[in-house]
Parts: sequence; structure tokens; C-alpha cells
Amino acid sequence: MLNILILAAGKGTRMHSDLPKVLHPVAGKPMLAHVIETAKQLSPSKILVVYGFGGDAVPDQFRHENIHWVQQAEQLGTGHAVMQALPFLDPEAKTLIMLGDVPLISVQTCQELLKNQAKLTLLTFAKANPSGYGRIVRNAQDEVVAIVEHKDASEEQRQINEINTGIMAVDNHALSEWLKNLGNDNAQGEYYLTDIVGMASQQGIAVGGVLAANEPEITGINSKSDLASIERCYQQQQAAQLLQQGVTLSDPARIDIRGKLSVGRDVHIDVGCVFEGEVHLADGVRIGPYCVIRNASIGVGTAIAAFTHIDDAEIGKQAKIGPYARLRPGTVLQDETHVGNFVELKNAQVDVGSKINHLSYVGDTTVGKQVNIGAGTITCNYDGVNKFRTVIGDNAFIGSDSQLIAPVTIGAGATIGAGSTISKDAPAGELTVARGRQVTVSGWKRPEKIKK
Amino acid sequence: MLNILILAAGKGTRMHSDLPKVLHPVAGKPMLAHVIETAKQLSPSKILVVYGFGGDAVPDQFRHENIHWVQQAEQLGTGHAVMQALPFLDPEAKTLIMLGDVPLISVQTCQELLKNQAKLTLLTFAKANPSGYGRIVRNAQDEVVAIVEHKDASEEQRQINEINTGIMAVDNHALSEWLKNLGNDNAQGEYYLTDIVGMASQQGIAVGGVLAANEPEITGINSKSDLASIERCYQQQQAAQLLQQGVTLSDPARIDIRGKLSVGRDVHIDVGCVFEGEVHLADGVRIGPYCVIRNASIGVGTAIAAFTHIDDAEIGKQAKIGPYARLRPGTVLQDETHVGNFVELKNAQVDVGSKINHLSYVGDTTVGKQVNIGAGTITCNYDGVNKFRTVIGDNAFIGSDSQLIAPVTIGAGATIGAGSTISKDAPAGELTVARGRQVTVSGWKRPEKIKK
Amino acid sequence: MLNILILAAGKGTRMHSDLPKVLHPVAGKPMLAHVIETAKQLSPSKILVVYGFGGDAVPDQFRHENIHWVQQAEQLGTGHAVMQALPFLDPEAKTLIMLGDVPLISVQTCQELLKNQAKLTLLTFAKANPSGYGRIVRNAQDEVVAIVEHKDASEEQRQINEINTGIMAVDNHALSEWLKNLGNDNAQGEYYLTDIVGMASQQGIAVGGVLAANEPEITGINSKSDLASIERCYQQQQAAQLLQQGVTLSDPARIDIRGKLSVGRDVHIDVGCVFEGEVHLADGVRIGPYCVIRNASIGVGTAIAAFTHIDDAEIGKQAKIGPYARLRPGTVLQDETHVGNFVELKNAQVDVGSKINHLSYVGDTTVGKQVNIGAGTITCNYDGVNKFRTVIGDNAFIGSDSQLIAPVTIGAGATIGAGSTISKDAPAGELTVARGRQVTVSGWKRPEKIKK
Repeated sequence: MLNILILAAGKGTRMHSDLPKVLHPVAGKPMLAHVIETAKQLSPSKILVVYGFGGDAVPDQFRHENIHWVQQAEQLGTGHAVMQALPFLDPEAKTLIMLGDVPLISVQTCQELLKNQAKLTLLTFAKANPSGYGRIVRNAQDEVVAIVEHKDASEEQRQINEINTGIMAVDNHALSEWLKNLGNDNAQGEYYLTDIVGMASQQGIAVGGVLAANEPEITGINSKSDLASIERCYQQQQAAQLLQQGVTLSDPARIDIRGKLSVGRDVHIDVGCVFEGEVHLADGVRIGPYCVIRNASIGVGTAIAAFTHIDDAEIGKQAKIGPYARLRPGTVLQDETHVGNFVELKNAQVDVGSKINHLSYVGDTTVGKQVNIGAGTITCNYDGVNKFRTVIGDNAFIGSDSQLIAPVTIGAGATIGAGSTISKDAPAGELTVARGRQVTVSGWKRPEKIKK
Repeated sequence: MLNILILAAGKGTRMHSDLPKVLHPVAGKPMLAHVIETAKQLSPSKILVVYGFGGDAVPDQFRHENIHWVQQAEQLGTGHAVMQALPFLDPEAKTLIMLGDVPLISVQTCQELLKNQAKLTLLTFAKANPSGYGRIVRNAQDEVVAIVEHKDASEEQRQINEINTGIMAVDNHALSEWLKNLGNDNAQGEYYLTDIVGMASQQGIAVGGVLAANEPEITGINSKSDLASIERCYQQQQAAQLLQQGVTLSDPARIDIRGKLSVGRDVHIDVGCVFEGEVHLADGVRIGPYCVIRNASIGVGTAIAAFTHIDDAEIGKQAKIGPYARLRPGTVLQDETHVGNFVELKNAQVDVGSKINHLSYVGDTTVGKQVNIGAGTITCNYDGVNKFRTVIGDNAFIGSDSQLIAPVTIGAGATIGAGSTISKDAPAGELTVARGRQVTVSGWKRPEKIKK
Repeated sequence: MLNILILAAGKGTRMHSDLPKVLHPVAGKPMLAHVIETAKQLSPSKILVVYGFGGDAVPDQFRHENIHWVQQAEQLGTGHAVMQALPFLDPEAKTLIMLGDVPLISVQTCQELLKNQAKLTLLTFAKANPSGYGRIVRNAQDEVVAIVEHKDASEEQRQINEINTGIMAVDNHALSEWLKNLGNDNAQGEYYLTDIVGMASQQGIAVGGVLAANEPEITGINSKSDLASIERCYQQQQAAQLLQQGVTLSDPARIDIRGKLSVGRDVHIDVGCVFEGEVHLADGVRIGPYCVIRNASIGVGTAIAAFTHIDDAEIGKQAKIGPYARLRPGTVLQDETHVGNFVELKNAQVDVGSKINHLSYVGDTTVGKQVNIGAGTITCNYDGVNKFRTVIGDNAFIGSDSQLIAPVTIGAGATIGAGSTISKDAPAGELTVARGRQVTVSGWKRPEKIKK
């Protein structure tokens, strides 16, 4: 049986933030959420999180998760944190102790750690420059016998490059015994969990040590600089995964994925794109440079041109969107639709083959098939207090710079003259106009520069 | 006499794509096109390309090139590929064998290789970490005597860091003889071209080896990850060239050039710009951040502000474009023109000093000199089936939010009142308006919130 | 007493520019300005700058600074440059000689250099690969005894990795004596300032050497490639400072700060933003990807969405701006204002809670509180020669696609019907419209395709 205990009580003073450290986002998600997600993939019987700084702010973010929350009212060290959780651990289980500020730890590494049969197994790392870190001292049997802090290390011990990560797997019976004897007789007056290594060693109990595969997965976040580094590591990993799936990335160092990006075959993503939430790009989709796409599904062969901003929208096949198109929530574009520059759509459902190519605002609108909406068209969906719908039938042609004052229906095949203000329904198949008569004012003089 | 034979038959399974590997673009151009371009600069009597996977898709992309295409129906190894081409090689010539998936090979390196007088000369590379690669074994005379695959190499041979690149120059007589004896008695049942090195060595024929200058030029592309790396190498090289020509780049790591960018003196390019096709920037041109510019010529002293998107356009001197300007094909802007934010131009010719500064669509339009086109102006160039032109004379003033319904002519010096729908020609020098009368509806009540 | 002498006379041939080298910008400011700013922080009694190439172009850029300009008519070497300045140095002072093309030198390093009591102290640097540089030769007492040029260095001397930077502190009496004896008997016929080291050494005068902390601060700029490298170093430093202050940066490698960016607590800046001039971001401000912000103050909790372009504007608290919003000079937005996509504001003052959400141009306008300006609204502020103001009262509702022809006043609580051209004042509390009557043209036929 496996328990997972995540330590997440710290303030993170060096973050210079009012937000508890573990809530700072990596790839758009609190760093603690990454750890919890990894924990869940290990199928533990129970996940416990020790929280402290920020009070309920941390648990509040994870109300939907099945987590046992343990409050650490005072922050008296990692040993103290584990003591608070001890009553809630299953006595017969093994506990994996994870850190809420080490978000990139991998499932594979945790599994390696858990495979070790020792009563206590530390996750360690072979660090190129270990200066400042606690060194792992092993005996001839390759068992861990001590963690020596840098300042206490001999010259010989300082040559050791295997360091402690703070992550460990421990038998709950043994943990319970060790914690009883844990003291706080040190300068900080804190209880250090790592002291249990020395206890085990003194009792002749073998302590295991498992090396982590790479540095990012054991790196803790203590500052905004750390946060930025981990963010970049994570983005690099995601870009590498996309490349492996066959996506063409113009620059793997210039893509940001904050959520889940799923892709079909032969997808191209140009430089500088940002993806948030759940985004699906079907086969042959091409995304131009500097697009921002959140919660969207984009159909086969559709091309999204530069500077397009999509939020909560569905787009069909072979559509052409952008550049500078803005699709807001509720937008659904069927196959072969075209949305061009400086066009904003909001809660608009646009049927097959229709085009809204230039400088328009179309909101709360149903657009039929093969409709052409001219440049500068505005749907007036808001009277100051209520929102109303506009319905445009198949094959309608909306002349440029028209205003459609909702609620209003434009019949199938209707034509609206350019520059018309349409406040009543326009009948199908007919031309409807609403505009002033053109007159030339003879003898009119242009204004002159006013002297000031 | 020089023949050049390019091997381009592979599928590239790890590309996870329906496109044959050699058609994947580097800097906007199929990688094979880069190799062909380099080949042409060596002035060969003949260029042959062995194609296979994807059938005619590869030759189809190069119909305009003078290339002898050789089909390799089955992919039975590099030796087999060369056998297919042998009948078409000039017997008295030397053949340079290039690889269609090694796009950054330089003309200089090929020339170095071709200078070598040996009947067979290999292009090699001194690789920092050669593990996994075929090692070049040389004798006391510094002649190549063998290529030893990593798995077959002795401990001593594994210390060799000179590796084989697959590119070579070979005497056609000798090649013809060697190919006759090439076998496929190996695990894969393939014919390996590199086996000819052993044959030459056994025959006491000296084999040359010429070192390539840098790693990118001998790097083959087998995955989307390789493709991304090579793309970045190429872009880095282009940025370095621009810097050497005196261009100021705000960040050489954030510029993408997919085609030819030629520049005058004192050109500045801000971060994140993408250039495609043929682009010329004259002296003193300044390009703001995040511009996308394709097939354009930009005149002396012109400033292009952020987020501008240009496709197939010519711009004169001292013009001011953007931010957020979109110039579509056929746009010609004369000197000192201004095009501002959220303005789309398509097939518009704009004469000296005219201004279209805000939220307008001007298409299929001729604009005279010193014209002022107000915010929100739309040329209605499309009646649903036909496109028509708008002509605006010198010094005209088009009031904001006007629609000009083409075909229509606005005379020189004419003034159009704001908000007018102009469906008939407007005479020169006069004020023309077409709008409704302003009335105030007394006692009107604002709508109230509808209860739902 | 401290004099500071900055050598800034060089042309910088390899810059390939008409601009004198020291005027090329680093982070938006001439590189010489960085050196002058550092010099001023050392509180010298006098700053002298030797200029030459480009004539008055260099002094002209710094007319507002209290600098003693010394012209070096001919460029005959660094020694010659200092000779020109000698008459203006205070005899009793020490002189810090700085270089106009070494912009990232830090105040701390200069202070370290000035602390040294020797009559001559060189700023040196321990360079990983010193090949090509003049080596610092020290005696057993760790005093500098010579600078040996790379070409003149013995094999042993070439092992030295301490190099000369050209920056030094020198006693003015000693300097005056040494300069008298400085010759130009060398291939270039130039006077080399570094020759004074040999003179001091021969006179048994101890020469000090102080190591610079890092390479960027001693790196000189001789080409556009150097300029780009230094620009990146500087930007990296600024990003590191922001992180240390607690700003969340999505990517520290993709932010450009050309001026002063001051920040409150819990500020987030997404990828690709460019800041110019003086920008202040208050607590909790969030800047979306690819924003360009110049001379702006942004209030607590305000969110700026992607692709926003701000130039000389003030924004209050809890405002929502963008995406694709353009704020031009003179824009002042009060708290809780909303400015949306494809909206351009120029010299517009917008009071609390007002919204301009879609495709509008609002210029030279005063907007009251809680005003709603509909999509496509245009203020016609320009009659071709004069600009006029529009005034919109509190709670007004401007229907979509209206034109407000300035000078014009829309009364408090007034409603303007969509598509109206408003040329006269609209009374408070009433509905005002100006549009054509809607008619349907019965029997009208759509145009047919014209055969060509």
C-alpha cells in the first residue's frame, strides 16, 4: 500500500509574493498541481498534503481533488511537517514524501524510488557542481550511511557529487519510530526530516539511494528566477514531445504550452505561439507566427494566420482564419469558413463556406451557409442592458459597413446594401437598404486653419 | 567534368509525415532545394536526383529545374541508389554524391572535397562525441583505409573522432567497377555505398578524406527534432550574415528569414520579425517588433511599426506603416505615405503623401496624392460576383466611416462627408454627402433589463 | 578629486554605419549614454569626453549633460586622445579613463578600480580564452609590470589569462609626465596609452591591476555582432533584476526593456513584451504576450491582453485593455475602464467604468463615467486642417458604427442610435439618431458575373 505525502507549507519569502509558493504557476497551473498530478499517476491509497502559509488558499485551489489536508500551523521544519501527517498515514503502508515546490519530478523516477526495498530510500542526484548541497555518503555496500551538509563536509566528502533531493520513500512503521526521536536541538530550532537517515544508519538499517534521471525533476523553486528556469525546462520538454510526435516547430524555444495540446499528423506551428487549456489541432493544421490559442479545436487542413487570438472556439476543416482574427467564447466555425483581419466573433455560429473577411464585429449571431459579410459590418447585439441575437440566412450578402440591430433576421439570399442600418427583418431574396441620399453641396468651401 | 548525384529516395519514417522527407522545408524551402541550389553553384555538367518514396511528389516540386530524375523503385540501400543512376553518369566525369537530407552543406566544402585528386574522396567530420558513428581509419600516409562502424570498432578505433558523412567525390570509371562488386550480404540485405572504401583500399587505391568545416553542414535530418535544429542553425547563420552586413538586430536569436533578405545601410530590425520570399529593405529602414513581411520592397527611411503584416507590396521612401497594418498583394505605396492601425490594403496604389491611418479597408483602389482617408472608410469593391475599382483624385478628403461603392470615382479635391455611402461619382472640388438627418426622439425611454 | 575621461572618438568602421559608433543604441540609448550615466554615479568633479568621428553629432546628443567636450581632430591613437584632454584635467586629481564603446562597465567595478592607491591602476579581466589579447604580466609582488601584446608574447606569457581592458585610473601628475614621453614610433604611427605602463615600470613605480567581475562589463563593441551580444547581456541583466524583485516572467530570454521599468508586487509579464521609456506597473498588473509599452503608468490589478500597443498613456486600477488595443499619446484611462480589440485611442480621457470594446477610433475626446461606446464608433476629430474635441457625458450610450463629428457634445445619459452620423450636439437623456429609412427594393436582381 502506498501513501503519498506532499510537503507544501512553506511561504517562499524569496518569491516576493502574497501568493503561497506552491500556488505559483508552472505552465499555467499551480506548481503543487503538477506534483499532485504525478502523485495520482502512482495510484496511492491516499494523498496527503501538508499546508501552512496562506491558510486555506492552498486547499481552496484543490477542492475538487481527493486529498487529505493536514495543516501545519507553525513552520518548524520538514520533520515537524511530517509529524503533523503521521496520525493520518496507514501504518502498514510505505510513504512517498514529495515536495510541493519540486514540480517536474517524473512518474518514472518515483517508480524507481518505490521499487527499492529498503525501509528508507532517498532520491538523490549526481550534480555537476554540488557545492552548497548536502552530500550522500555511501558505504562499501553502496548503502547510504549519512547526509553531510556542505558546511560540515570534509575535503574528501566535498568531492562527492551525489546530493540529497529531499524526496524519499519510507516504511511507515520505521518512520513513526524515527519521528519519536527527532529533535530540534539546532540553531534554527527546527525538526529536520533528514536526521532520520542518521538514525537508520545507527540502527544498522540499510538506507537506499536512487539517482534521479535529470536535474529539472529534482529542482526546487525558491525564487522567481527558479520559477522561470523550471518554466523553460517544462516548455522545452513539451516542445520535444511535440517534435517526437511529428509536429513541425519553427522554433522549439519559442512555443508555450499551458495545458494540453493534442495534435494530428503534419501539423506546423510557427514561432512564438502560446497555447492554453485544451487545444486540439487536427491533421494538416498550420498555425502562423504569434498566435494565442486557448481551449479550441481546429479541424483538418485549417490554416490560422499570424496574430490570431482564439478563446473557446471550434473551427471546422479547411477554414482560413486570420491574420489578426479574434475568436471569443462560443464561436463555432464550420468547414471552409473564412475569418479575416480585424474581425471579432463572439458566440457566433457560422455555417459552411461563409466569409467574414474584414474589420467586423459579429456577436450572438447565427450565420448560414455561403454568406458573405462585408467589411466593417457590426451586429448591434446589446441595447445597454440586454443582448439579442442576429440570424442571417444562407447565401445572404451583407454590404459593407452595415449595422444589424438585433433582434433581427436577414432572410436567405437577402442582400443588404452597403452602409445600411437594419433595424427590422430583411426579407429573403430581396435587396434591403437604409441609407441617406447622395447629394453634392455646390459651392461648399473647405474649412480653413483656425488661428490660435 | 563534374556530375552531381543527390540521393533523395528515403521516406524518413521518423518524420511521422505523409510528405517525403526531402520535401520538408528548411527556411521555407524543401531541404532538397537547398542541396540542389548548392549543387548548381558548383557548375556541374549534370545534376541527377535519385527519388523513391512519395513517387512523383519529389520531381513535381522541381519541374522547373534542369535535373535528371532517377527512380529507385525499391529502397535497397545507398549503393543500390547509386547503381540506378550509374547508366546516366558521364563515364569520364567525377561524381559528387550529395545527400538530399543534408541541406546545409556549403559550396566551399564541396569545392574542397572536389579539389582532392584521389579516385575516391570522402567528406568527413571531426565530431566531439563520435559515439555511434562510422569512424574513419587512416594509414600512416593519412589516406583513408576503412570506415569502421561503431559496433565493429575496437577500443582504440573508438577513440577516433573523425566520422564519415556519407558525402563523397568519386571517379566514375572506378565507381562503375566498384558497384559491380557491391554485395548485399548483410543483415538488412542492403547495398552499402560505403563498402567501396574497403574495395579501393584492397586494390591499393588511395582514398582521400576531407574534413568539413562545421557540424551543421554535415548534419542529416531524420526527425522533426533534427529539422528544428537545422532550421535554427540556418537562421543563426543568416542572422550572422546580416550583422556582418551592418544590420542592427535587436535579437539575432529571434529573426526568421525564409527566402532572401537584402538590405541597405543602417537598417534596424526589432525582435521577432519573420521575412519570407524576396524582401528588400533600403537604407535606414526600421522594422518594429513582430512584423511578418513577405515579398516586399521597402524604400529609404521608411518605418514599419509593430505587428505589421505585408505580403507582396512595394513601399516608397519615408513612409510610415503600422502598427497593425496589413498590406496585401498588389499594394503599392509611394513616398511619404502613411498607413496606420487596423488598415487593410489590397491591390491599392497610393500616391505620394496620402494617408490611410485608421481602421479602413481599401481594395482595388487608386488613390491620388495628398489624399486623406478617414477612419473606418470601406471601399465596397465586390458585389458578390464581380470586383470593381475605386478611383480617388489628388487632395480628396474622405470623411470617416464612408463607404465608396465601386465602380466609383471621387474627383480631385472632393470632400466626402463622414458617414456617407457614395454610390455615384463625386465631383471634384465639391462636398458630397449621403447620410440621414439627425433627429432627437423626445421622450424615448432606454430599454430595461428583460427578466428571464 | 576625481576626473573622468571617456574616449569616444572612434568611427567604428566595422559597424558599417553612418552613425558614430558610440551613438549606436544599447537598450534604446546610445552606448555612450550608458558610460556617462555610470560616470555620473561616481560623482566626479568633471566628466570629459573626447569625440572625433561624426563631428558634432556626438556632443549634440548630450547637450543637456554637464560634460566637457574635447575634440580629437585626427585619430592618432588612445594616447593622442588623452593628450587632447590633458590641458582640461585637474592637476591634483586622479582620472578614471573609460571607453565610450564599453557600455556595461559597472559602478562597483569602477569603485574597486579607484580604491587602488597606485599611481596607475589597470582594469583587467581573467579571460577563459585570452588568445589575441594583450596579457598582463605581474611581478612577485603581484604588481603589473607590463602589458604584452599577443603577437609579442612568449609561450609562457601566452599562458597568462589576465588581459588588459583599456580602462584605467591614473594620477594626473604622473599621467602628464608620461604623456610627454609617449612616442608614435610604430607601424601605425599611433600614440598608445598603454605604453605608460612600461614607463611606470621602468621608473620603478608600482602599477596596480584590478580584475573586473564579469566579461560583459569589459566587452567593447566593434561590430553589429558585438552590439547584439551586448544588447542581449544587458537585457539578461535586466530580466534577472526583475525576477529578483519578484516579477513573474514567462521567459527571461524574451523580454526587452529599453528604459526604466518599475514594478509593484505580484506583477506578471508574459512572453515577448517590449518596454520603452519609463514604464510603471503597479501591484498585480498582468501583461499578456507580445505587448509593446512605452512611457506608461499602469494601475493596480489592471490586465493588458496580448498584442497591445501603448505609447504615452496612463491607466488606472482594475482596467482591462486589449487584446489588440492601441493607446496613443495623451490617453488617460480611469479605473475599471475597458478597451477592447482593434480600438485606437489618441488624446482621449476616459472616466471610471467606461467601455470602448470593439473596432473604434476615439481621438481628442473626453468620455465621462460608465459610458458605453459601441463597436465601430469613430470620432471625426479632423476636418483636414483643424482638430476638434468630442465630449461624451456620463452614462451615455453610443450605438455601434456611429460617427461623432467634432466639435460635438453628447449629453449625459444620451443614447445615440446605431449607424448615426452626429454633427450637432445630442441632448442629455434623449435618443438621437441620424440614419436613412430602411426600404426593401422589390424585384431587385443580384448582379451577375461580368464576362471578360
